[in-house]
Amino acid sequence: MADKITARNEDYSQWYIDLVRSAKLADYSDVRGCMVIRPNGYAIWEKMQAALDRMFKETGHVNAYFPLFIPESFIAKEAEHIEGFAPECAVVTHGGGEELAEKLYVRPTSETIIWSSYKKWIQSYRDLPILINQWANVVRWEMRTRLFLRTTEFLWQEGHTAHATPEEAQEEVMRMIGVYRTFAEEYMAMPVIMGRKTDSEKFAGAEETYCIEAMMQDGKALQAGTSHNLGQNFAKAFDCQFQTKDSGLDYVWATSWGVSTRLIGALIMAHSDDRGLVLPPKLASRQVVIIPILRGDKEEVRAHARFIAKALNQKGIATFVDDSEQNSPGWKFAEYELQGIPVRIELGPRDIEKGICIAARRDSGEKIELQLGEELPAEVQGLLDAMQKEMYQKALRFREENTVEATTYEEFKEAVEKGFVIAHWDGTPESEEKIKEETKATIRVMPEEAGYIERYGMHEPGTCIYSGNPAARKVVFAKAY
Amino acid sequence: MADKITARNEDYSQWYIDLVRSAKLADYSDVRGCMVIRPNGYAIWEKMQAALDRMFKETGHVNAYFPLFIPESFIAKEAEHIEGFAPECAVVTHGGGEELAEKLYVRPTSETIIWSSYKKWIQSYRDLPILINQWANVVRWEMRTRLFLRTTEFLWQEGHTAHATPEEAQEEVMRMIGVYRTFAEEYMAMPVIMGRKTDSEKFAGAEETYCIEAMMQDGKALQAGTSHNLGQNFAKAFDCQFQTKDSGLDYVWATSWGVSTRLIGALIMAHSDDRGLVLPPKLASRQVVIIPILRGDKEEVRAHARFIAKALNQKGIATFVDDSEQNSPGWKFAEYELQGIPVRIELGPRDIEKGICIAARRDSGEKIELQLGEELPAEVQGLLDAMQKEMYQKALRFREENTVEATTYEEFKEAVEKGFVIAHWDGTPESEEKIKEETKATIRVMPEEAGYIERYGMHEPGTCIYSGNPAARKVVFAKAY
Repeated sequence: MADKITARNEDYSQWYIDLVRSAKLADYSDVRGCMVIRPNGYAIWEKMQAALDRMFKETGHVNAYFPLFIPESFIAKEAEHIEGFAPECAVVTHGGGEELAEKLYVRPTSETIIWSSYKKWIQSYRDLPILINQWANVVRWEMRTRLFLRTTEFLWQEGHTAHATPEEAQEEVMRMIGVYRTFAEEYMAMPVIMGRKTDSEKFAGAEETYCIEAMMQDGKALQAGTSHNLGQNFAKAFDCQFQTKDSGLDYVWATSWGVSTRLIGALIMAHSDDRGLVLPPKLASRQVVIIPILRGDKEEVRAHARFIAKALNQKGIATFVDDSEQNSPGWKFAEYELQGIPVRIELGPRDIEKGICIAARRDSGEKIELQLGEELPAEVQGLLDAMQKEMYQKALRFREENTVEATTYEEFKEAVEKGFVIAHWDGTPESEEKIKEETKATIRVMPEEAGYIERYGMHEPGTCIYSGNPAARKVVFAKAY
Repeated sequence: MADKITARNEDYSQWYIDLVRSAKLADYSDVRGCMVIRPNGYAIWEKMQAALDRMFKETGHVNAYFPLFIPESFIAKEAEHIEGFAPECAVVTHGGGEELAEKLYVRPTSETIIWSSYKKWIQSYRDLPILINQWANVVRWEMRTRLFLRTTEFLWQEGHTAHATPEEAQEEVMRMIGVYRTFAEEYMAMPVIMGRKTDSEKFAGAEETYCIEAMMQDGKALQAGTSHNLGQNFAKAFDCQFQTKDSGLDYVWATSWGVSTRLIGALIMAHSDDRGLVLPPKLASRQVVIIPILRGDKEEVRAHARFIAKALNQKGIATFVDDSEQNSPGWKFAEYELQGIPVRIELGPRDIEKGICIAARRDSGEKIELQLGEELPAEVQGLLDAMQKEMYQKALRFREENTVEATTYEEFKEAVEKGFVIAHWDGTPESEEKIKEETKATIRVMPEEAGYIERYGMHEPGTCIYSGNPAARKVVFAKAY
């Protein structure tokens, strides 16, 4: 049963930790910075994996698996890459009881080990494109950790593709950030802003990083997925050339893209409340709980509950019955609210007499009287669909209400404590760095969405919020997880 | 296209390597002993995972994820466990640029890290049972590696369960070895012998290890899955006690069980031939390839091929068309035989005129004329079902033909070069060890299957094949992968 969860407006960080622990989503382990993803949390990851994996395959990708270990000399082959990743790696120095001749890094990301294979597989344009994804664990040594959001080990998928032309690579980069956007919006019910990162925020080794950024309930930003155009950087580092159609020789063009278990953290922070988890129905492995009110002829109530559960399951609505007598209905209500089951159905002897049941939506708390009978599955599906849609709309409204356009640095500093700030930037790393130093806010994204660009006039010239110098465009600033 | 594959009767080991490389199932990586599982190989693993995961969930298990790293002190808590595993571990000594206070082992198996969590989760009998499975990568430093069968890193699943009574734990052990057996026989079309390991062959830290053993085409044995009764060993090592129903205090009873990507190696070695991979239809992600013979009105032939593919896919038969003109039909036949597509359908303009197509089964090479029309999907499904069944029967016949009962040590030594040998054993580790030294054969399994026991009189007393001392039972010896 639920331990007490701190209220969001009291201490947002503590609320998050309390929720993750009480709902049994994850635990810290005895290994510094590493988490245990408990069955309730892992079930969310499985739903995410299934949806993403299907979307990857629909866009022509296949899965494969590359080694966990990366020789030190590989990491060193791409200059920016080693600078970015080497300091946060775990290093294996001994194996099979002996000291290794060359140290092995536990992968923080797999570009180098994968390109050492691609080099062997690619001779000609006929071997291209390669469209591979990998589901794997990665390790990045973290000093300050937070369950799901920032841990030393986490689970993710990483796509690594190889192309014959830069145009094809860029197309892939945009296709995959589009897949992530669709996933965030349609499955996670989480609005995101899609766009580019600044040079100082891009992936170590990339030419360009595209991202989707979401707003959490405390107004902070969370990067929910990235797609990198790697140009020919890794092909050059691994001397991977191919024979072109017109018999020339060129380096291969590359992309990589990934999302991780931090999406579970994003999902929690975007939607959940002081009573516990709120899950969009599409990512709930258990969508409906039926709680029979066991009075009068208990067996009859139980039989009705089971009959309804069967009817719902047959229509593809994942339903279970909790008819235990060990806990009271009130206890069960609280427990399944904590666990984020999207719809609760209460069913007592008097309801059965009247031919009805009471459904309660987890997001709004709304209670709806539904008729028992053939139409019930369609009615319940309707509730789930409405919930999925309204959760998105609510989060979008929240983002819009907490997005401010600032024209002075004073305005900027105040607003960035509460949400996203749209402001002009002169395009220099110096202004970007100074703003970060003084406010802890970073440039989250330079939007690439027509709707967003138009709404906030992102491409209108103006003066930089920091330097006062001419600025060609506005960007989105926020503090971030 | 296929490189030349060495014939099995010429050099079985080389045949295996040639096949794995030519069919693009896996590659050695640049990291010693680690493999790259290529998309064709990983697709088999995905089919295996899907079937096993469903079977695990049907038996009440849920998935979770525990850390990759295990503190040295944890591994050391169970005496037999550290003795068995520590010498083959990869060890992380540095993280985030600094030397670690305590070394971290990359998990060779997860009993210790998982029981350090279970200790926190279990207080009372009401917290039991815990029925958790994990899909993960593990590392065991190997000196001599072989793709899929023995690599430093491999993928697997490991179930770890916690119970209130020894009876319940033993029931779980038998349930899961039963699941593996069903999977091996019904999905992999691979007959197995289920039974117990001797003390010297059991898992380091287990009370009892149950296994399934399969015969490869060279007569060697391959352990295809294990299920361990861990007794209270790990609960004691981690001081994990629980309040019993009658308010007593007891240590928790444990099991663990696993199968790994070595099953892909088993699948290849059990069924494939000199032309390439032979896959049981249930584990083929692509079950039917349609190869249109592009003569006459090519577009009409293509349209027919696509129409048939659509009809088959709609009936759940995974079908694709290769209508490229870059390669000849003959080239395609060889390529898809190499890749192990279970059924090939050839379709030319004259076939269409006659209202037929020619289907070829990958396992037997048999060609069957099928009528085009509504019945076609059912006919093709019939071929796939027959193939699945006959592959199992063929492998079973092979095992029976290569199983010998030996009554003298001379007979034994000759027979064990070719297949399984059933012989009396006096039950001492000394005889077992001597036989291993002299012949390289080990006791693979003490069968627990009524049918097998009866057929070979496994429980009849006799004299030990090695010592001549009284022996209470026969056991199965073989050389093994």
